[in-house]
Amino acid sequence: MKLTILGCHSATPRDNARPTSQVLETGGHLFLIDCGEGTQMALRKHGVKFSRIKHIFISHLHGDHVYGLVGLISTFCLLGRETPLHIYGPKGIKQMIELQMKLGNSYMPFELRFRESVETTATLLFEDDQIQVTTIPLDHRVYTHGFLFQQKPGERHLDIVACEEYGVDKAYYRGIKKGADYVAESGEIIPNNELTTDGDAPKSYAFCSDTVYKPDIIPQIQGVTALYHESTFLIPHEHLCKKTKHSTAAQAADIAKQANAGMLILGHYSSRYKSYDMFTDEARPIFENSHCALDGKVFEI
Amino acid sequence: MKLTILGCHSATPRDNARPTSQVLETGGHLFLIDCGEGTQMALRKHGVKFSRIKHIFISHLHGDHVYGLVGLISTFCLLGRETPLHIYGPKGIKQMIELQMKLGNSYMPFELRFRESVETTATLLFEDDQIQVTTIPLDHRVYTHGFLFQQKPGERHLDIVACEEYGVDKAYYRGIKKGADYVAESGEIIPNNELTTDGDAPKSYAFCSDTVYKPDIIPQIQGVTALYHESTFLIPHEHLCKKTKHSTAAQAADIAKQANAGMLILGHYSSRYKSYDMFTDEARPIFENSHCALDGKVFEI
Repeated sequence: MKLTILGCHSATPRDNARPTSQVLETGGHLFLIDCGEGTQMALRKHGVKFSRIKHIFISHLHGDHVYGLVGLISTFCLLGRETPLHIYGPKGIKQMIELQMKLGNSYMPFELRFRESVETTATLLFEDDQIQVTTIPLDHRVYTHGFLFQQKPGERHLDIVACEEYGVDKAYYRGIKKGADYVAESGEIIPNNELTTDGDAPKSYAFCSDTVYKPDIIPQIQGVTALYHESTFLIPHEHLCKKTKHSTAAQAADIAKQANAGMLILGHYSSRYKSYDMFTDEARPIFENSHCALDGKVFEI
Repeated sequence: MKLTILGCHSATPRDNARPTSQVLETGGHLFLIDCGEGTQMALRKHGVKFSRIKHIFISHLHGDHVYGLVGLISTFCLLGRETPLHIYGPKGIKQMIELQMKLGNSYMPFELRFRESVETTATLLFEDDQIQVTTIPLDHRVYTHGFLFQQKPGERHLDIVACEEYGVDKAYYRGIKKGADYVAESGEIIPNNELTTDGDAPKSYAFCSDTVYKPDIIPQIQGVTALYHESTFLIPHEHLCKKTKHSTAAQAADIAKQANAGMLILGHYSSRYKSYDMFTDEARPIFENSHCALDGKVFEI
């Protein structure tokens, strides 16, 4: 999994502080997660081949997470895209986009497929043979959910030496990698685990933005390889979290710790703070492997 | 009049090529003209005090002219703006903005006042004692109009020597500058033109974007101090103008020449062209005082 941060700042976008958007590359997909104003410029700036994006996941309908979506769709139109585009987001997103396209009298050369959410429990949104994507119910000022991207167990690795010793023809390798036993010419059944070793451990990525501290998500994201959790504030402003429904870096670290996450990525910083280090300084005593999202930064998960 | 170009490129925004937006400073106002995606970032980048913006003029509802508007309004909300904001644009703009604000459950601490246009003839949108703003009907793929900003005649300049010779008390200066005659103590009436000279010539700015070549606008903009006219294409691509309803630089220059404009500002460049000079090279043989709009460039009109 490769995660590219396109924007990671809260609320009011500035020229060097873009609102939330990320691209997750996994299982042959390029998933776009949230799409604040200016996302299409950031995609170009960071050289993301955005014609490859087929699925866009929107966490909630606040502007700093969605106001770049209609512009990106318009650009797809102007570039003559033909591939269908799947958009997953809260109820209302279809009307929001379709109204603007209609008012612009835009010719739509491809199909827009909306999957609008209203569910308040974790819901499967997408699945293929390599990955599945599920909502993570969050608690913000409007209906909001995050997303859990989970790879499925990969193919088993062939033990070539063992295969050759048993005289396995290469024609069977594909099936064996998928877990099949091997039936020798003698009729003897060679169990799969004598011919293979475990495949790569499946990885997972949880995207949690925006939300107040919500420990009831922990069972769902338990053992996640990487957790992005918003950290709009620091402890001195924790009193603002309840009203605005945001979290501190310490609360994000606490979630990561309880969930036994592999790493924590912080973001959605309030513009009142002048240094990113302040966020990792607060998080690391609680959860050591904490990192700051930065516009353009790439995380290998 | 001071015109700041925030963006001047067509269609698909890139990091160094923003879509259309301009700020015109005149008569104590900061008028925002069109508002493509990323306009609020450009306002910050170029140090425009955007809390001073009270009137926003939108030419048409294509994304590259309006998709930055809802984000700017959201930012005004987050910054706690209290001053009413007037938005002038084609019918539909009110629904477009209000739907998005409603879906984001945004608290609106100030009043949004929409003036939606449906008229197909020049229509007065705004007037105070210093300036008036009128639509310029254009011909594009959707309902579009430009805007003509016209200063009203300024105060007359006092001829101080003459005033002193006639013994005019300074208490009368204000009235005389506004055109009043002076009644001396003797009862003699001194005509205003013996006490003053003509004030500064009122200036005007015509914003014409986007449009096919449309010479019937010329009477309305005759003698304009500065004309912005879109020049999406150059002559080798003139065949694209009819279908896309855009103009070439040569056509823009032709309009400027026939309108006896003081200067021509070109913009809305197609991304197929690699140099801005190609636009002025095409325009100047027809209209010498032609200039390219560039992101961040300031024109004193």
